[in-house]
Amino acid sequence: MAIKRRKVSVIGAGFTGATTAFILGQKELADVVLVDIPNQEGPTKGKALDMLEASPVQGFDANITGTSNYEDTADSDIVVITAGIARKPGMSRDDLVNTNAKIMKNVTQEIVKFSPECTIIVLTNPVDAMTYTVFKESGFPKHRVIGQSGVLDTARFRTFVAQELNLSVKDITGFVLGGHGDDMVPLVRYSYAGGIPLEKLISSDRLEAIVERTRKGGGEIVNLLGNGSAYYAPAASLVEMVEAILKDQRRVLPTIAYLEGEYGYQGLYLGVPTILGGNGLEEIIELELTDEEKQQLDKSAESVRSVMKVLE
Amino acid sequence: MAIKRRKVSVIGAGFTGATTAFILGQKELADVVLVDIPNQEGPTKGKALDMLEASPVQGFDANITGTSNYEDTADSDIVVITAGIARKPGMSRDDLVNTNAKIMKNVTQEIVKFSPECTIIVLTNPVDAMTYTVFKESGFPKHRVIGQSGVLDTARFRTFVAQELNLSVKDITGFVLGGHGDDMVPLVRYSYAGGIPLEKLISSDRLEAIVERTRKGGGEIVNLLGNGSAYYAPAASLVEMVEAILKDQRRVLPTIAYLEGEYGYQGLYLGVPTILGGNGLEEIIELELTDEEKQQLDKSAESVRSVMKVLE
Amino acid sequence: MAIKRRKVSVIGAGFTGATTAFILGQKELADVVLVDIPNQEGPTKGKALDMLEASPVQGFDANITGTSNYEDTADSDIVVITAGIARKPGMSRDDLVNTNAKIMKNVTQEIVKFSPECTIIVLTNPVDAMTYTVFKESGFPKHRVIGQSGVLDTARFRTFVAQELNLSVKDITGFVLGGHGDDMVPLVRYSYAGGIPLEKLISSDRLEAIVERTRKGGGEIVNLLGNGSAYYAPAASLVEMVEAILKDQRRVLPTIAYLEGEYGYQGLYLGVPTILGGNGLEEIIELELTDEEKQQLDKSAESVRSVMKVLE
Amino acid sequence: MAIKRRKVSVIGAGFTGATTAFILGQKELADVVLVDIPNQEGPTKGKALDMLEASPVQGFDANITGTSNYEDTADSDIVVITAGIARKPGMSRDDLVNTNAKIMKNVTQEIVKFSPECTIIVLTNPVDAMTYTVFKESGFPKHRVIGQSGVLDTARFRTFVAQELNLSVKDITGFVLGGHGDDMVPLVRYSYAGGIPLEKLISSDRLEAIVERTRKGGGEIVNLLGNGSAYYAPAASLVEMVEAILKDQRRVLPTIAYLEGEYGYQGLYLGVPTILGGNGLEEIIELELTDEEKQQLDKSAESVRSVMKVLE
Repeated sequence: MAIKRRKVSVIGAGFTGATTAFILGQKELADVVLVDIPNQEGPTKGKALDMLEASPVQGFDANITGTSNYEDTADSDIVVITAGIARKPGMSRDDLVNTNAKIMKNVTQEIVKFSPECTIIVLTNPVDAMTYTVFKESGFPKHRVIGQSGVLDTARFRTFVAQELNLSVKDITGFVLGGHGDDMVPLVRYSYAGGIPLEKLISSDRLEAIVERTRKGGGEIVNLLGNGSAYYAPAASLVEMVEAILKDQRRVLPTIAYLEGEYGYQGLYLGVPTILGGNGLEEIIELELTDEEKQQLDKSAESVRSVMKVLE
Repeated sequence: MAIKRRKVSVIGAGFTGATTAFILGQKELADVVLVDIPNQEGPTKGKALDMLEASPVQGFDANITGTSNYEDTADSDIVVITAGIARKPGMSRDDLVNTNAKIMKNVTQEIVKFSPECTIIVLTNPVDAMTYTVFKESGFPKHRVIGQSGVLDTARFRTFVAQELNLSVKDITGFVLGGHGDDMVPLVRYSYAGGIPLEKLISSDRLEAIVERTRKGGGEIVNLLGNGSAYYAPAASLVEMVEAILKDQRRVLPTIAYLEGEYGYQGLYLGVPTILGGNGLEEIIELELTDEEKQQLDKSAESVRSVMKVLE
Repeated sequence: MAIKRRKVSVIGAGFTGATTAFILGQKELADVVLVDIPNQEGPTKGKALDMLEASPVQGFDANITGTSNYEDTADSDIVVITAGIARKPGMSRDDLVNTNAKIMKNVTQEIVKFSPECTIIVLTNPVDAMTYTVFKESGFPKHRVIGQSGVLDTARFRTFVAQELNLSVKDITGFVLGGHGDDMVPLVRYSYAGGIPLEKLISSDRLEAIVERTRKGGGEIVNLLGNGSAYYAPAASLVEMVEAILKDQRRVLPTIAYLEGEYGYQGLYLGVPTILGGNGLEEIIELELTDEEKQQLDKSAESVRSVMKVLE
Repeated sequence: MAIKRRKVSVIGAGFTGATTAFILGQKELADVVLVDIPNQEGPTKGKALDMLEASPVQGFDANITGTSNYEDTADSDIVVITAGIARKPGMSRDDLVNTNAKIMKNVTQEIVKFSPECTIIVLTNPVDAMTYTVFKESGFPKHRVIGQSGVLDTARFRTFVAQELNLSVKDITGFVLGGHGDDMVPLVRYSYAGGIPLEKLISSDRLEAIVERTRKGGGEIVNLLGNGSAYYAPAASLVEMVEAILKDQRRVLPTIAYLEGEYGYQGLYLGVPTILGGNGLEEIIELELTDEEKQQLDKSAESVRSVMKVLE
């Protein structure tokens, strides 16, 4: 029985989608199909070809192709959704939600049609609600529809802590719950440098400033870029989730997961610690929270619900 | 005596410069300073920060910083120049040459001021003439000023051959002389799949088509993208040259090198096979050429000279 | 449908088998089962556990286990055979052949029983005849039973050439046909440094000396070690073949393959250039040989046949 | 100014020394000189050559050489000491200590003679006392003489925890103080799975069993192997320390460090959390200990002192 290479499709060939495809290729994790809408087919093919032309130099074997035809995504093991619009000046949040939800629905129908056994990872914002939309539209079991936010949030947190302490990022860990950005609930007591709780190494003032900077981490990049938003760290975060599943690693990673009673919530997607492996989301880890943490998480859940209402 | 990390500065924070910085970081080859002009300082800092925030996830230790201040490049081991404008519709070639030459001169003065011992690698087009400009302006010895084009051209060639034969890119090698793009002189007889000369595996018609596609490889990406040009493969190519020098590998790579009699040319930069190592360009390898190859190379050299005349 | 990690079993937990298991783990290519005979179960488990304990530091996820029970190899994608005895002083070649052939038969029965769909790669010497023995005993199709010798022989050749020219091993390629060691048929005209035929860079005397050193490469290590034989380079060579199959890379690699008419031989295993991919041995590449090369290859084939006669 | 590759010498070409050299090469961290006594020169050269012959296949550039001549170690950036004898049945501890101390002194004189600026990492047992011996003999400042034990102990601990929880080793961290093996002081409260304290995930009984297994981790391998001791995980641990220094990473790693008042001890080497970077040991991190932990650490320190007395 011939061994076939894994296959990952990335929907949305903007900067994040393209960078995700490139890193997947670099790591020889899978063949990659980069998908965008028909009027973006040229640029999508162009980016894919440019990446492929990097492969002899970087020494990786991965077919990277660009397309606007979902047939090319057939039998993907994993599909990553980065498609969607960013909020523009003057656009209401509800308009953003409804526009992206519509995109999620269309995209999901195509994914399900050609890869009925795949696992879907959603990045599009507002990510909790968009993951829910994909979940509903796909009819997939909950362990095969998840969203990304916590890997990125902790990556930013770890970066800022490493700078603060002048230490390797390899030895810094972070821990967040809840939604992305402003709704992020940092569990600083579960965050360490070389295993030492950060609270012992950084003053509470500085630590609070780092948490706050992490919350605003996406906005910081948007402000610097002037035009556009972060894509290197988001792409790296997506790849880490893909890798955990494709290599059946049972990594402990924060994931936007569908809750059915966990942490006291029912029927919504929220960022929680999980185990990712060959089955997609294999387990949700429940932690005891302090009252303050629980209140923050409630607020985060409330925020997700308010977006979900827009969808109805 | 403390061990210091290597340092590489990348001038020009466009797509190629940024992607170069990212791959350098991923490979932990050096700390990286990404430099652009003052009115691009925000985006430059934004891209650098975004890359740095990918580092905890990708597991690499490298400080990547963005700046418009050349002081931050001080004591670089290598400086890569990607700055410059692309040719716009209606712009004459001479205008392009003169504009980019002016940029090269300014950039070089700053590089030399802060990193008098560095090696400079130039990517800006027209790359042979721009490398010459940097060489003259820097006053550096010729082994410390080189240009990139052949690594990229062979990467494209190898990609197309791998597709043609449905083989791993790892087992395809290619060989070019002369200038970039249209002026490229492919030595197909020195190009192989698994060591087997391509001429034994691919019909001469198909091989000619692949050579032609390689010559137009940059244009193919430009046409697909619609707006902009290739950056993944160019960045990977630059990184391979940087790595060969930083790790003193004595790699055999095609390089735009200053010729003083080699191949019968005097006082111009042209793409030739070279050895890159800890001294920068350590050797130029001279090959016997067929009459046809020599004629093509003459044409390529003539083309470089005609651009150099514009500079005077 | 859950994604399962690939599985590779390595039969024989001596230095080569153990090193093969370790490198497979380092590369996260598969879970690895290291197998040896019951009275070696302790050391086998000990080595596997020691490797596993290296995994948190090296940062790889791979279960590496030691066993003497073939049940643990069930459903392997690939099985590598390194088991067998080495020739001892006073032992006739025929005794060696018969002893190892008996081991091959026993081992093959167990492999087939538990992994009827696997691909088998044989390293045990005399490798051509042992691969044939495994082929016959397994009843597997020829594309799923192959032997290793040429990857190692070319690795040694490339090392010696790199030293001779003081160049990176990355840019040296080599090409051999025929049997291992003394029977090796080097195709120097298909061997290059940076694509340049070695004959243009190294005098014929020195080149002949390098070829001769390659032929005796195994013996050189045996003589130096005093007790035992090479294992780092043999293990690395096995892993390259495993990787080509597991990642469906379609690498061009020299392989001991079953010939049915190719190169004019019928019904024997001999080292030839091949394509390795998801189907195991996907293609044999036939080259035109010079008369001298054909004569050398005939001699190599004759040598294989004489060993095969011992087996009857 | 030409860029030179880093250089690491490994004293002792047994399994641990050889495996350390191989992994250093694989990672292209440095050129490696493997050193053993004159009557082991053949095997030392044989192992080094075998590794070098693996380099074209594994794709790494590193000169690995074997020698019995310390001149070849000249100007090493780092020297790793794995030389020494293992305790044999019937040998008293004092005999072991005195024999290895004598070896340390001889080795250190040679190291200092040829690499007066290097950093030395000691693995030889009993490691705390042997590191002290090297420190005294070398006359080096304390930040350039350190010992390895905690990286290995935590690697074993992490392995066992990963097995217990069926999670990726990448997400398990461990923390130890004090001596190697029986004298190890585990700080379980600073050990985590995905940032979650292990005490919340594993029963105290099981956790105690894992700690105990870690303490006896070296012996477990010795018992399984029957003849010899662990070398894969020890080598990987050494390489991690070397890498932290060569790449100036400022990693937080447990190190056997010279204490001058830290943790209340004066003038002895003991395992403590440290920061390793381009200066070698850059900082010792002091933690508040519980009374029980402090008592255990006192016992560990006492044990070190009793060995040091043997040395006088």
